[in-house]
Amino acid sequence: MMQMERDNLLMDFYELTMAQSNFDPKSKNEIVYFDAFFRNLPLESGYAIMAGGEEIIDYIKHLHFSAEDIAYLRSLNKFTEEFLNELAAFRFTGDLYMVPDGTPVFGHEPILTVKARAIEAMFLETALLTYMNRGIKYATAAKQITLAAGDIPVMEFGARRGDNPDCASKYAYMAGCSGTSNTKVGKQYGIPVLGTMAHSMVMNEESEYVAFKKFAKAYPDDSVFLVDTIDTLHSGIPNAVRVANDYLIPTGHRLKGIRIDSGDLAYLSKQARKMLDSVGMTDAKICLSNGLTAKTIIALKNQGACMDSIGAGDNISAPKERVGVVYKLAATTKHNELVPKIKVSNDIAKVTNPGYKKVYRIYDRKTGKAMGDLVALHDEIIPTDQLELIDIENEWNRKQVTNYEAKELQVPIFKDGNLVYQEPSLEEKRVYCDDQMGTLYDEVKRLDNPDKYYVDVTKKLLNLKKELILASKTQMVIKEVDQVKQLVLK
Amino acid sequence: MMQMERDNLLMDFYELTMAQSNFDPKSKNEIVYFDAFFRNLPLESGYAIMAGGEEIIDYIKHLHFSAEDIAYLRSLNKFTEEFLNELAAFRFTGDLYMVPDGTPVFGHEPILTVKARAIEAMFLETALLTYMNRGIKYATAAKQITLAAGDIPVMEFGARRGDNPDCASKYAYMAGCSGTSNTKVGKQYGIPVLGTMAHSMVMNEESEYVAFKKFAKAYPDDSVFLVDTIDTLHSGIPNAVRVANDYLIPTGHRLKGIRIDSGDLAYLSKQARKMLDSVGMTDAKICLSNGLTAKTIIALKNQGACMDSIGAGDNISAPKERVGVVYKLAATTKHNELVPKIKVSNDIAKVTNPGYKKVYRIYDRKTGKAMGDLVALHDEIIPTDQLELIDIENEWNRKQVTNYEAKELQVPIFKDGNLVYQEPSLEEKRVYCDDQMGTLYDEVKRLDNPDKYYVDVTKKLLNLKKELILASKTQMVIKEVDQVKQLVLK
Repeated sequence: MMQMERDNLLMDFYELTMAQSNFDPKSKNEIVYFDAFFRNLPLESGYAIMAGGEEIIDYIKHLHFSAEDIAYLRSLNKFTEEFLNELAAFRFTGDLYMVPDGTPVFGHEPILTVKARAIEAMFLETALLTYMNRGIKYATAAKQITLAAGDIPVMEFGARRGDNPDCASKYAYMAGCSGTSNTKVGKQYGIPVLGTMAHSMVMNEESEYVAFKKFAKAYPDDSVFLVDTIDTLHSGIPNAVRVANDYLIPTGHRLKGIRIDSGDLAYLSKQARKMLDSVGMTDAKICLSNGLTAKTIIALKNQGACMDSIGAGDNISAPKERVGVVYKLAATTKHNELVPKIKVSNDIAKVTNPGYKKVYRIYDRKTGKAMGDLVALHDEIIPTDQLELIDIENEWNRKQVTNYEAKELQVPIFKDGNLVYQEPSLEEKRVYCDDQMGTLYDEVKRLDNPDKYYVDVTKKLLNLKKELILASKTQMVIKEVDQVKQLVLK
Repeated sequence: MMQMERDNLLMDFYELTMAQSNFDPKSKNEIVYFDAFFRNLPLESGYAIMAGGEEIIDYIKHLHFSAEDIAYLRSLNKFTEEFLNELAAFRFTGDLYMVPDGTPVFGHEPILTVKARAIEAMFLETALLTYMNRGIKYATAAKQITLAAGDIPVMEFGARRGDNPDCASKYAYMAGCSGTSNTKVGKQYGIPVLGTMAHSMVMNEESEYVAFKKFAKAYPDDSVFLVDTIDTLHSGIPNAVRVANDYLIPTGHRLKGIRIDSGDLAYLSKQARKMLDSVGMTDAKICLSNGLTAKTIIALKNQGACMDSIGAGDNISAPKERVGVVYKLAATTKHNELVPKIKVSNDIAKVTNPGYKKVYRIYDRKTGKAMGDLVALHDEIIPTDQLELIDIENEWNRKQVTNYEAKELQVPIFKDGNLVYQEPSLEEKRVYCDDQMGTLYDEVKRLDNPDKYYVDVTKKLLNLKKELILASKTQMVIKEVDQVKQLVLK
């Protein structure tokens, strides 16, 4: 195996300078709690799909500062030898809890929680955010597309447009794509590798017919011809049929299919189906591609387009969208006592949920459906008989639930620095993701104007939040402003 | 040095199946010519910045199929042993010409040209496109932002939101950023690493004052305080001033500056300046950040915002935009004769420029300014006395140029598979990029409604293009349709 390039120093530099400024015997071993969460769902989606956990685990497992890293940091003249020595011996020794890859997740709930010494928890920030922001983006985009496609298999063709094709192809498969064109990832994860042919192959030969025939001879059982290089209906399909009649059928094979990659896919695919059927090639499949999105796939279906498979590229590997996972301090400790922390803001949506927390998904026992998520303090007991779930962004949206099961969403990944999680294979994550999507109501999963999934907080957490908001305002007014404003606001 | 993870198999699978279908003694050594180009400029920009060349060179230099790769491909049961043996011995043996990283580039001109055996040229497609699509995106986004900032240094803070932070930080620096927060890339390329402090550091302490003081003690010469955690004007700045007065000044230091990361940056920065000046801290710098774009930077300047430096993150590392570089067959050879090829399309912008080509940039000898680019066939002699440049997308836009110099844009990178290019350092690329931007008119570089830079083709190339379009239509109608349409269009 080729050695992986490690992201050890994928840290914002301030994590290192802050660590050194915090590097006194009293505070360096202080335990802090950080949560990662996003506020808004990406891609106008009713859900997001957790992803990036694999990279996070790999990163933490191997996180260290090599002699070369230390030499580099020393050369910057910003760090003491004592601090550099600490880095040289550095390993992650904390706890990490995380929602497993493939789980549907929602805004304002901790999808990852770190309990560790401040220096350790801060070092993880940049890498964790990078991995989740891109992973969730790819997985959610792919899930939207595969859900729109329904039973029609979606092949992921996005490598050439993706900033990080390895990650995109992997999480596209997890989110339901049937395979990838990315041979590297196919090899790495045993994902089916797929593809047809390029326009250049047709252009490279003296005629389309010759190109198709050449391909048919090499892959008589896999003869899917790209028919839109010259003219889909007047050249491509007729030539595909000719090659089937001249070569494939006489040698005991069938025309496997055609791919249309340009033009009006609804019209062309229906015409193509008619043409193929009229010559008895009813078993030839039609693959459609060309910048397909979840919305265009649904539109194609509504127009009766004939498609047996779909190729989707940049709308999986390069969605024009960002995911905004952030990583916020939730609590510290003083004399072994937990001290919940809050980040206040004039924008109420930006006020964080304080404290060391857990998230529960509330399943209806009768239907197995997820009714909403509940964020609680870590030591709270969730009632087992009755709950009122409140959409915290719109407090008048409430529902009473009974006969439910509350399951914790985060699972322990690292305990005291030891990996305690057996990571599922990508194939297992794919099955798990599909299962989990099955617990969501269709209304949450629909593309247009999806129903809002409830993410609620317990009363205890809500009260703590209100208390800390008040305290923070009080502290600001009394302790900070009055003492100092005469200094500068004269 | 950690071994780089190689992208050897970062190939769309069809490149391999097409190669095998083309694997006969006659055609496997046939030389083909491919061009890479984009049609539309990204980010509503008047220019794009070439980038990704470094990764392309590295990829080609190391491109091979390991025993493990071969074993994997064999396991797919799609390839003959003869073909797999060819792959085992595979090295790139062709020529590659490329516009150097950091050069401003425009639509419809070949920024990269490959002359190689079909199998080799096709294998490069996916990796080349991935590297250029992301590199150009990051470099162009960063250039827009650094141009908008003008003399104000821009620090790149985008790692946590970028799909590929290494690449983004590198090309952001090439495009004029003054440093990065990404420690990994800082180490790799010797880029200045920068940063201030995070909100979590303030939240983690018992008060903002304590947090600032802690940081000041660790970095008395680098005391830039993040002042917006609680309230910029009523807490953050007063506390920064207090720490300066209580600790920095008594120990012989000055307050280096403050960073404001939320709120109305125009208003807050002006108030902050007044407050700092009123206590004699006129030398304290103000750094602004928070989702800044080229447009908001210009808007801040217009409002008289006080900013000494800018932090820019996701608008460099994760622009909501794609670059659409494509890789198209331009010519093949038959009996050692060049055969130009064209891809026709109903969309005239999608018709490719045929033939083996070169691109020239036409500089005014008096001003040194770039007047436009001219795409020519590779063996054409460009006139030295007079040229009429035509905007090929709007043929009525023309300009006569005299007293000019025509410089080739592409440079030889590989010849017969050997690297013949001495790659500049990132620092050199940064200087080069800045110099090259200096040759563009301000009207092309402005953010709003930039003037169209001319990309013209020679008459000879234009005639060849028209000829091939006609021939392709004729060929389609006569050779393909009439022979076959009775088969299926009955």
